[in-house]
Amino acid sequence: MRILGIDPGLRTLGWGVIESHGSRLSHVANGLCHSDGDDLGERLLSLHNQIVEVIAAYEPDQAAIEQTFVNKDGAGTLKLGQARGVALLTLAQAGLPVGEYAPNRVKKTVVGVGHAEKEQVLHMVKLQLPGCQPKGADAADALAIAICHAYYGPSKSGLKEARA
Amino acid sequence: MRILGIDPGLRTLGWGVIESHGSRLSHVANGLCHSDGDDLGERLLSLHNQIVEVIAAYEPDQAAIEQTFVNKDGAGTLKLGQARGVALLTLAQAGLPVGEYAPNRVKKTVVGVGHAEKEQVLHMVKLQLPGCQPKGADAADALAIAICHAYYGPSKSGLKEARA
Repeated sequence: MRILGIDPGLRTLGWGVIESHGSRLSHVANGLCHSDGDDLGERLLSLHNQIVEVIAAYEPDQAAIEQTFVNKDGAGTLKLGQARGVALLTLAQAGLPVGEYAPNRVKKTVVGVGHAEKEQVLHMVKLQLPGCQPKGADAADALAIAICHAYYGPSKSGLKEARA
Repeated sequence: MRILGIDPGLRTLGWGVIESHGSRLSHVANGLCHSDGDDLGERLLSLHNQIVEVIAAYEPDQAAIEQTFVNKDGAGTLKLGQARGVALLTLAQAGLPVGEYAPNRVKKTVVGVGHAEKEQVLHMVKLQLPGCQPKGADAADALAIAICHAYYGPSKSGLKEARA
C-alpha cells in the first residue's frame, strides 16, 4: 500500500510518500510545496496544483494528515486552517481515504515519546526509511505522518474502513 | 458587473449574487450551501462542488468574501479557516478577482454602523435589493458582502486592480 503523508502549512506544506508491505516500510519520495502568488486565493491554488501533481506522480492508495494543533494564535490557526482545508479537499477530489493523526500520536509512533524534538523525528524517519533524505523538517514530519498511518490505518481507528 | 458574495462557514456557507450598474444595484440570486458528508474531506468537497455550481449558474465577474473574525475559539477558527480556504481556492480556480472585507466594514457600508445586528443587515439588504428574499441570515450576509464590494471594489482598496 502506498501512503501519502501531508504536514499542512500555508507558506510551506510538507509531503512524503512511503510504501508499506505489512510491517516493512520503504521510502518513495518526499518534498515541500511552497505557496506562490500575489494573494491568498492564488497561494491556495498553487498549493492545490502542487498536491495534484504529487498525487498524479506517485499514485498513493491512501493519505494521512496531521490534526492541526489549535493554539492561542488565532491568525496562525486561520492560515493553517485554510491550507489544511485545501489539502483535504484535494485528497477528497482524488478519492483518497484520509487518516488524521494528532501530532503527539505521530511522534509517539515514530520516536516512542509524544513530545519529541524535530531532530529526533528526522533521525527516526531516516532510520525507519533506509536511504531516505527528507528535504526539510516539514517533509520529515509528512513522512512521519505516513509512517503513523502505516501502523494505525487502514483498518484501525485513524481511518474509516471500507472507503478505498 | 455581476458580483458573487460569500459568507464562509463549514456547516453552512451563504452566497448571494447581485448586479451593479454604477450606483444601481439589483438582486440576482442567493442561497445556502450545506456541507454534506461523513468526514471533513467529503464535507469540504461538497461545499466546493456547490460553489462551482453557483459560479456556473450565475457567471459572476468578481467575488467578495468576508474577512474571518478570529476569536478565542481556536477549534471554531480552524473549521471556519478550512471552509474559507476551500471557498477562496474555488474562486481562484474560476479566475475571479476577490475582494476581502472586514465584517465591520460590510455592516458600516450596508447599515451605516459597524456593530449592526443580523436583523438590521437583513432589513437593509432587502431595502437596497428590491424584491430580494434572502434564504437565511448567512445568505443575507453574503448579499451584504457583495453590496460592499459594489461600493469598494473593483478599483478601490478592497481589490487589487487590473486582475479581471
